[in-house]
Amino acid sequence: MTPTKSELWLRFQKYYLHLPGKVDFAIDVSRMDFPDEFLSSMKPAFEKAFDEMTALEAGAIANKDENRMVGHYWLRAPELAPNAEIKSSIENALAQIQDFCAAIHSGKINGAHGKFTDILLIGIGGSALGPQFVSAALAAPRGGPMKIHFLDNTDPDGIDRTLAAIPDFGCTLTITISKSGATKETRNGMLEAKTVYQQNGLDFGSHAVAVTSLGSELDKVAVKEKWLARFPMWDWVGGRTSELSPVGLLPAALQGINISNLLEGARICDQATRVRDVQKNAAALLAAMWYFAGNGKGSKNMVVLPYKDRLALFSKYLQQLLMESLGKKLDRDGKRVNQGITVLGNKGSTDQHSYVQQLREGLDDFFVIFIQVLRDRSGASMQVEPGLTSGDYLDGFLEGTRQALFENGRGSITLRIGDVNELSTGYLIALFERAVGFYASLINVNAYHQPGVEAGKKAAASIIDLQRRIVAELARTKRAQTVGEISVGIACDDHEMVWKICEHLATDSDGRLKKNGSGFVATYSC
Amino acid sequence: MTPTKSELWLRFQKYYLHLPGKVDFAIDVSRMDFPDEFLSSMKPAFEKAFDEMTALEAGAIANKDENRMVGHYWLRAPELAPNAEIKSSIENALAQIQDFCAAIHSGKINGAHGKFTDILLIGIGGSALGPQFVSAALAAPRGGPMKIHFLDNTDPDGIDRTLAAIPDFGCTLTITISKSGATKETRNGMLEAKTVYQQNGLDFGSHAVAVTSLGSELDKVAVKEKWLARFPMWDWVGGRTSELSPVGLLPAALQGINISNLLEGARICDQATRVRDVQKNAAALLAAMWYFAGNGKGSKNMVVLPYKDRLALFSKYLQQLLMESLGKKLDRDGKRVNQGITVLGNKGSTDQHSYVQQLREGLDDFFVIFIQVLRDRSGASMQVEPGLTSGDYLDGFLEGTRQALFENGRGSITLRIGDVNELSTGYLIALFERAVGFYASLINVNAYHQPGVEAGKKAAASIIDLQRRIVAELARTKRAQTVGEISVGIACDDHEMVWKICEHLATDSDGRLKKNGSGFVATYSC
Repeated sequence: MTPTKSELWLRFQKYYLHLPGKVDFAIDVSRMDFPDEFLSSMKPAFEKAFDEMTALEAGAIANKDENRMVGHYWLRAPELAPNAEIKSSIENALAQIQDFCAAIHSGKINGAHGKFTDILLIGIGGSALGPQFVSAALAAPRGGPMKIHFLDNTDPDGIDRTLAAIPDFGCTLTITISKSGATKETRNGMLEAKTVYQQNGLDFGSHAVAVTSLGSELDKVAVKEKWLARFPMWDWVGGRTSELSPVGLLPAALQGINISNLLEGARICDQATRVRDVQKNAAALLAAMWYFAGNGKGSKNMVVLPYKDRLALFSKYLQQLLMESLGKKLDRDGKRVNQGITVLGNKGSTDQHSYVQQLREGLDDFFVIFIQVLRDRSGASMQVEPGLTSGDYLDGFLEGTRQALFENGRGSITLRIGDVNELSTGYLIALFERAVGFYASLINVNAYHQPGVEAGKKAAASIIDLQRRIVAELARTKRAQTVGEISVGIACDDHEMVWKICEHLATDSDGRLKKNGSGFVATYSC
Repeated sequence: MTPTKSELWLRFQKYYLHLPGKVDFAIDVSRMDFPDEFLSSMKPAFEKAFDEMTALEAGAIANKDENRMVGHYWLRAPELAPNAEIKSSIENALAQIQDFCAAIHSGKINGAHGKFTDILLIGIGGSALGPQFVSAALAAPRGGPMKIHFLDNTDPDGIDRTLAAIPDFGCTLTITISKSGATKETRNGMLEAKTVYQQNGLDFGSHAVAVTSLGSELDKVAVKEKWLARFPMWDWVGGRTSELSPVGLLPAALQGINISNLLEGARICDQATRVRDVQKNAAALLAAMWYFAGNGKGSKNMVVLPYKDRLALFSKYLQQLLMESLGKKLDRDGKRVNQGITVLGNKGSTDQHSYVQQLREGLDDFFVIFIQVLRDRSGASMQVEPGLTSGDYLDGFLEGTRQALFENGRGSITLRIGDVNELSTGYLIALFERAVGFYASLINVNAYHQPGVEAGKKAAASIIDLQRRIVAELARTKRAQTVGEISVGIACDDHEMVWKICEHLATDSDGRLKKNGSGFVATYSC
């Protein structure tokens, strides 16, 4: 039976958690249809989750695969780091970033053509998603100190298009970010960018900085080529929780974003979500709702709908944070569980004119996280009708959709912030980091490794190796061969892959193979 | 039992559908694990789907809710239109677009400050997603004839940021797109933009064009304010299939995109997918695979992974096309079915460093559509290692992921095109349009209406109305009132919504209400 408006108002007030202060954050879970006893039934599981989080924050080995601590919470509270060395390395990195930015912004460090005006960030996954989200949320749309461009793939055409949009490489600072220093996409992007600098008669190293682990392949290149600076990444920070490490802070600060406030916002959230009471802990409430929605098995998709253009990339950021952390085959006891939570979304009210038709009427396979921002804009609003502003409509669409979804039996959570700024952005990042940690405890998976990503890299490497063997074979025999003949020649039973690799090599603009009747032949460029 | 490489190679060849020609398109469904008899078992259902599509293309009333024909296929083949009037209106609109663009590009029509250099497109849903996708795929990254900006929401802050990025309104052509002419988000965006033109001392009408239905609210404004031009939208084109109507063609042509080839690509695909043989019809094969994957109930998410940066917005475009078309509560017999297919995705190999961890190891709740592009880039490639290019890695990552997913029991479809250009982009648009039409027939839903979107607009309107009543009540009584008192005063039982509206009005920068103790009071600006 549908509850009355009065019953809903009581339920709203019962579960509404408002945490006033610098961020003015609130979470409303009243439109998730859990019974009143649900939260108390989860209490024992949360006791364990709180204990595990406390141990993690104290420096326990949480990533057992790689025998590592997991310390992204220390980034905004270095005093909590488990030893003095880590504490001072965080503080030193922050000081190094601030000093470097001051030198760039003041023109103390310049490019070959003068003051640095553009940033080319080369990174992928955790080394790009955070910087992309934060730039879209917080960088000035025009007139900021530096404009950022991203190379986040190994697509040759995409690389060409990104580099073509850079006005002057002599005023462009390239930041190459790879924690391991061995990510092929990033390595390729860096080499392609370097070539373009050189084609422009510029020395790459004096326009380049690295963010990477000390002693990594990338770090060695940066030392050898005398890059402008090297910023640290630590083995206790995972890529998907690295936005508040140098990975995210360096590009943010260069764009004029106040990184002290970004850290402060995260710190405020961390403090507020260490409370061992689910109903008073926004991160725990979130995790509890995920558990309720998907029955602890991720059986509902999570649709993220911020009603604010600046936050449109948040869903993509959360896709990585949740799906890479929770999407696991085995639980911590080695039992096969095939866990995860699928995340999608973009922004409201835009998406109401797209897939919200399905959310309202179609598959019952999701719950929604609305993000509401109280402040409409920085200045005054014009009236689009007597007494009404564009912002009134934005709010009306959010509330109307939330209400209509609930009436159709579709649950939603609403997060409310006062404004989109450094403080609230840091807060949201920290909130979901901790919610993921809690939820992983509830479902007993390791949130801090990514075995499938490693496996994917290996699969690709074996295909690259097969290509090498095909090219060598065709170059050796110097005659046209069918796919069958090539496969025999290199003793490979995967004819399909041989055919595909030959097709690619015969089609791309480098023309390393030529089609010849029903076979392929190497060209001079092999 | 996992099939051997040889068995897979045979299966690949059996189902591989290659349609050489201007687009060089191929579809591979061999990694969807359907039994050999599946396609023949679907034959009767497809006979009906083919019949329905033939009737639709001949002008049947396919959108029964609105008593309308559905004619997006005529846009690229006007000779197929059911009457001479429609045929000539399509041809005239195309000629009008070409003439208008020539006049803009040549400087025959100028803005107040000279040649038009920028486009501001104001539209939402079907009036923005297609233009955004096509611009990202085909516009020159730099140096094209005009640069495009989008207002696709009613977010005041987002509007401010978009408008702030426009260098000179005196050289900016605003295109307002709304089929009905009554979409509030678009109306608001247009009014906000107009105000900024006026603040810059510019006449809006002489920098504005409309794409809308003849006689709509927007059309009337355009006539009254003497806008530069009005382009038609027809009631037989739905928003989500309007990219090849003036909605998409006008902004594309202005950006220097070859719209004749865009139409030609779609036409080629339409011709190739009228074949009444599922195994030889790429659109039917796609629809069949969707049916197989989700058991005709949409029980698996569709993850769209183009390995090409230019196509990164395709998944967002497809989200609307599939979810708005298929996400329906009732089937065509009025039976409650809650249908749909959930679409997500971004691009490879980027996403391998994000959520592909979950796809490989986690929830078994999806299938993938890979999009592979044979040509790496327009020029030659550097070698990132001896004999290897960035494109070889891109291809290796795609193949490695496809293989690894299949080994884990996750199905995928691979679409292959020779290159990303106008022809192949038009082809892809047409392919999915027809696949959606076929699939809707298979599951017996009406793909051509969107009742939930209309309902959402009504829900929002009732909230806007409630706001009006609250403001009037507080302005009338001129005293602070609690939420309870206000609710009584306006005879509204939804205290929660009253509270939320008051909170918003008391927080936004226009300060229409003030908090006063536990209540709210109107300010002078009410």
